[in-house]
Amino acid sequence: MAEASLTVSSKNYSSWSLRGWLLCRMAGLDFAERVAPIDDPATRAELLLLSPSFLVPCLEHGPVKVWDTLAIGEYLNEIKPEAELLPTDPVARAHCRAVCGEMHSGFANLRSALPMNLKVHHDGFKVWAGAQADIDRVTAIWRDCLQRYGGPYLFGAKPTIADAMYAPVCTRFATYDVKLDPASAAYRDLILRWAPMVDWTAAAKTEPEEVEELDVEF
Amino acid sequence: MAEASLTVSSKNYSSWSLRGWLLCRMAGLDFAERVAPIDDPATRAELLLLSPSFLVPCLEHGPVKVWDTLAIGEYLNEIKPEAELLPTDPVARAHCRAVCGEMHSGFANLRSALPMNLKVHHDGFKVWAGAQADIDRVTAIWRDCLQRYGGPYLFGAKPTIADAMYAPVCTRFATYDVKLDPASAAYRDLILRWAPMVDWTAAAKTEPEEVEELDVEF
Repeated sequence: MAEASLTVSSKNYSSWSLRGWLLCRMAGLDFAERVAPIDDPATRAELLLLSPSFLVPCLEHGPVKVWDTLAIGEYLNEIKPEAELLPTDPVARAHCRAVCGEMHSGFANLRSALPMNLKVHHDGFKVWAGAQADIDRVTAIWRDCLQRYGGPYLFGAKPTIADAMYAPVCTRFATYDVKLDPASAAYRDLILRWAPMVDWTAAAKTEPEEVEELDVEF
Repeated sequence: MAEASLTVSSKNYSSWSLRGWLLCRMAGLDFAERVAPIDDPATRAELLLLSPSFLVPCLEHGPVKVWDTLAIGEYLNEIKPEAELLPTDPVARAHCRAVCGEMHSGFANLRSALPMNLKVHHDGFKVWAGAQADIDRVTAIWRDCLQRYGGPYLFGAKPTIADAMYAPVCTRFATYDVKLDPASAAYRDLILRWAPMVDWTAAAKTEPEEVEELDVEF
């Protein structure tokens, strides 16, 4: 039996599920994956971007139940310190948490205008100004981190919680054909080729049709 | 000279500023308060709930610069462990981070329908259904915590990051005359009478008129 379980919803649509799942993979946690029923009203609301959900992603590990992505990251960092999910340098660690926090609480325009959808590609997608402002801030964060810590990941040689937080944004940039500066484009490509992302994306592309029904409502 | 500085915006309107400031007070940090210029476009956007801002609250402490509320809490917990901003029990700590995360990324309807405004009181304010659903979830979190950890604060005898995260909600419930169950009402009153909240509220009530101009745009 696995050490822990992680409940996710749609692999194609749920960016929060992706983040939580990446964190568990990065931590080296032995976890079983559970899929929240698609007809559950709370799951449905989350997938339709109508409300955040405390159902997914949800990590259960012995007596611990954590249902927020950042909280999952902090918890995993405590129980698997060897995975170095957060930078070991205190100044970089504070910076890392700040950019994770920005992704966690912000970028509402980007979220709603460019929802994650790994199955499709929109050539020449027209991005409205509100979402473009979010894109500009995201890439400013990326360029600053890549320059300051030397890449290829946001905080240096190894992926941290920050890379998990921004990974769904990389897929959105690809899906909606968002024009990026060279440094940001290289980072996006690195994340899309990252082993756990390749695994998740493959699973998303073969996700059952049942989920597809939601598509029309986006 | 103070050990650190915290940049805040409006004491009357900025709920994120309040959270960051409470955390610094709870940690026992020796900090100077800076007020972001009200005519700064980023500050203005934050106050008008148009976008999150990475300008406020912003803690600067030596080489460290942290501009997200949760990141400020985690940073303070690292440098001032004796303040116990997070519960010492690992299971409770994970739970605490989950409810903080929910406040940090969610409750958009509550935020926009009931913006923080410490100077006014609206008797019999009509709450729309979307905001009511957020209120119901907030009070469910509170009741669960108060019952599980015995109160009077969310995670027991001492205030934690969670109390700072939900403190602005307590003011909203008072401002907009939101009907609460007895346990939630008692918790709201405890927070409103909490010494740092009393100090902040007094300062908010005498905030210069300059800020008031923004009021018409809410």
